[in-house]
Amino acid sequence: MRLLEERIQKDGIVKEGNVLKVDSFLNHQMDIALFQEMGKEWKRIFADVPINKILTIEASGIGIAAIAAQYFDAPVVFAKKTQSINLDGSVYSTKIESFTHKRQYDVIVSKKYLSPEDNILIIDDFLANGCAVNGLIDIIEASGAKLQGVGIAIEKGFQDGGKLLRERGIRVESLAIVEGMDAKTGKITFCH
Amino acid sequence: MRLLEERIQKDGIVKEGNVLKVDSFLNHQMDIALFQEMGKEWKRIFADVPINKILTIEASGIGIAAIAAQYFDAPVVFAKKTQSINLDGSVYSTKIESFTHKRQYDVIVSKKYLSPEDNILIIDDFLANGCAVNGLIDIIEASGAKLQGVGIAIEKGFQDGGKLLRERGIRVESLAIVEGMDAKTGKITFCH
Repeated sequence: MRLLEERIQKDGIVKEGNVLKVDSFLNHQMDIALFQEMGKEWKRIFADVPINKILTIEASGIGIAAIAAQYFDAPVVFAKKTQSINLDGSVYSTKIESFTHKRQYDVIVSKKYLSPEDNILIIDDFLANGCAVNGLIDIIEASGAKLQGVGIAIEKGFQDGGKLLRERGIRVESLAIVEGMDAKTGKITFCH
Repeated sequence: MRLLEERIQKDGIVKEGNVLKVDSFLNHQMDIALFQEMGKEWKRIFADVPINKILTIEASGIGIAAIAAQYFDAPVVFAKKTQSINLDGSVYSTKIESFTHKRQYDVIVSKKYLSPEDNILIIDDFLANGCAVNGLIDIIEASGAKLQGVGIAIEKGFQDGGKLLRERGIRVESLAIVEGMDAKTGKITFCH
């Protein structure tokens, strides 16, 4: 998606350790007009797919998923990190390793909000090694719901999360796939 | 807002300890069509106020704020709980006590995303003792930005957070104010 690639080129900051900071428009400050265009693009891509629910994970997936959900007329369920006293004990849970935070999370979704009748689109901001998406897929599989696809804003094409998901036959649609980036020059290249 | 009150009556669950569970439509599964109506209502209420940025706090404020932001043509900044390696050291920070999780969080906003030119609307899902909103106000004051108002989905009117904010002259607009609730009968009453 050219609009997103141009924005990453303009405002993304490359840091050592394969970190791409996009917090000026994607995951700290959120450019809602950009999110609308991303949501429309996912709807165009997944137009042929029955989707009645969007699943994401807190925190930075929530804004993107909420805006995108409007184009699918679907509710959003967000997986929560760590147990809350506001949730019943009856949850699907899995463990997810965070690339960003270098730690492991327990992630839960109430059993009330996923069922075998659901056709799910996963939406998230980043796909790198695929830990978050794989955790969400574990939860979907435990619920009996059907995973219809995965919509990612920015995929790090040089890490293998996307490749492994596609090899499993999962439809992954990333709006921008970073081929490489250089912390010294700030240069970012995309796969097309 | 009648639509929200009716939804709370229909799907809200009262638990012991003044807990109101609304996770089927507000803060775990998110009813995006309801959020659109809430966003329109805040825009109607704050139509006379210059607002160029919406501030919320992760995680459950993000979806509501993102949808509401569309009616203000404004970006959203969400305050983050705990330090991330993806953030620079130059942040505004404060400590917030969570009613739900019975613990204290460090909450941060990058200095890049709040400035004295900003006119801020705070949006959040719940207002009870006001800790989260007070923390966000601390951050706004530290940045020199101007707080124009606070939009809350559900205020617990029997706790004093809203009262104390209004006594300080802060404009707080809650779409539903719960006057009382009874965990035994499940009965919920609203202030009008």
